[in-house]
Amino acid sequence: MNIERIKPGAWNSRAVVHGDMVFLSGMTADDKSLSTRGQTEQVLAKIDEVLAAAGTDKTRILTSTVYLADITTKDEMNEAWTNWMDENSPPARAAVGAALTPGTHVEIMVCAAK
Amino acid sequence: MNIERIKPGAWNSRAVVHGDMVFLSGMTADDKSLSTRGQTEQVLAKIDEVLAAAGTDKTRILTSTVYLADITTKDEMNEAWTNWMDENSPPARAAVGAALTPGTHVEIMVCAAK
Amino acid sequence: MNIERIKPGAWNSRAVVHGDMVFLSGMTADDKSLSTRGQTEQVLAKIDEVLAAAGTDKTRILTSTVYLADITTKDEMNEAWTNWMDENSPPARAAVGAALTPGTHVEIMVCAAK
Repeated sequence: MNIERIKPGAWNSRAVVHGDMVFLSGMTADDKSLSTRGQTEQVLAKIDEVLAAAGTDKTRILTSTVYLADITTKDEMNEAWTNWMDENSPPARAAVGAALTPGTHVEIMVCAAK
Repeated sequence: MNIERIKPGAWNSRAVVHGDMVFLSGMTADDKSLSTRGQTEQVLAKIDEVLAAAGTDKTRILTSTVYLADITTKDEMNEAWTNWMDENSPPARAAVGAALTPGTHVEIMVCAAK
Repeated sequence: MNIERIKPGAWNSRAVVHGDMVFLSGMTADDKSLSTRGQTEQVLAKIDEVLAAAGTDKTRILTSTVYLADITTKDEMNEAWTNWMDENSPPARAAVGAALTPGTHVEIMVCAAK
């Protein structure tokens, strides 16, 4: 089965599509001056764009992993997440603390169905 | 293809079923007073329940990620894991240290086939 | 659908194959004296071997997660990664810092299509 790559770059693609499965790279915010909440909003907007480019949307996310530079900001991330998430379509999710590149407060990886 | 959600909540579902694939959320123990070993046992029992609700079981887990609040407790987690795991059906797995919410020693995410 | 396990061990399999999907365990280097760059090279060579055993190769990796013991070695890992990666086939990827077992600088988990 053919593999389609969306915005292939030097070390990853923004997303990889195989059959009806769409795998996104870990997304981070461009504006590192933002708080975890603001960065989460930017990340989720990027995820919407990439999902659209792959022919799907947030109601079809199957699973996601959220990496937080500071686990104590989980509630802040969750506020942005719940504002964005389709309330009828909660995906599977884990949210854990991990070391991220300087200035990055949150990185989110999702896998969706088309 | 239809997406089925098991115990959908405010920010995630316990599991999401798409075709013959079952994606579980990161599971944690309810009793935070337990050690890593005890919490792992609780988490694995929860995973059994959710897999059953999705129409599958631990012999059909494809891949798993184990997050440990303290990587030095990996052996302790592995004792509970090997007691539980079907010896003929070891999944793919990574086990790494990550910051978890206070009191949580272990969080496990699995993906299974139906 | 049948599940095939490659090199099943006490707590995981090197890889699990289900339909045309191949899930690898987190791979680490055997030589812990190597730097992050050297360990990454060893890990990627192991991934090539396991993918071959599963009947696929690095041009068909869909998604990957890279765990680094020290996030400041991300550039070093990326050098080894880009030398290895097929330039026409970048997978989805996240690379984050996580606590690993002593001496392990990098652990990489991939999911590929056959």
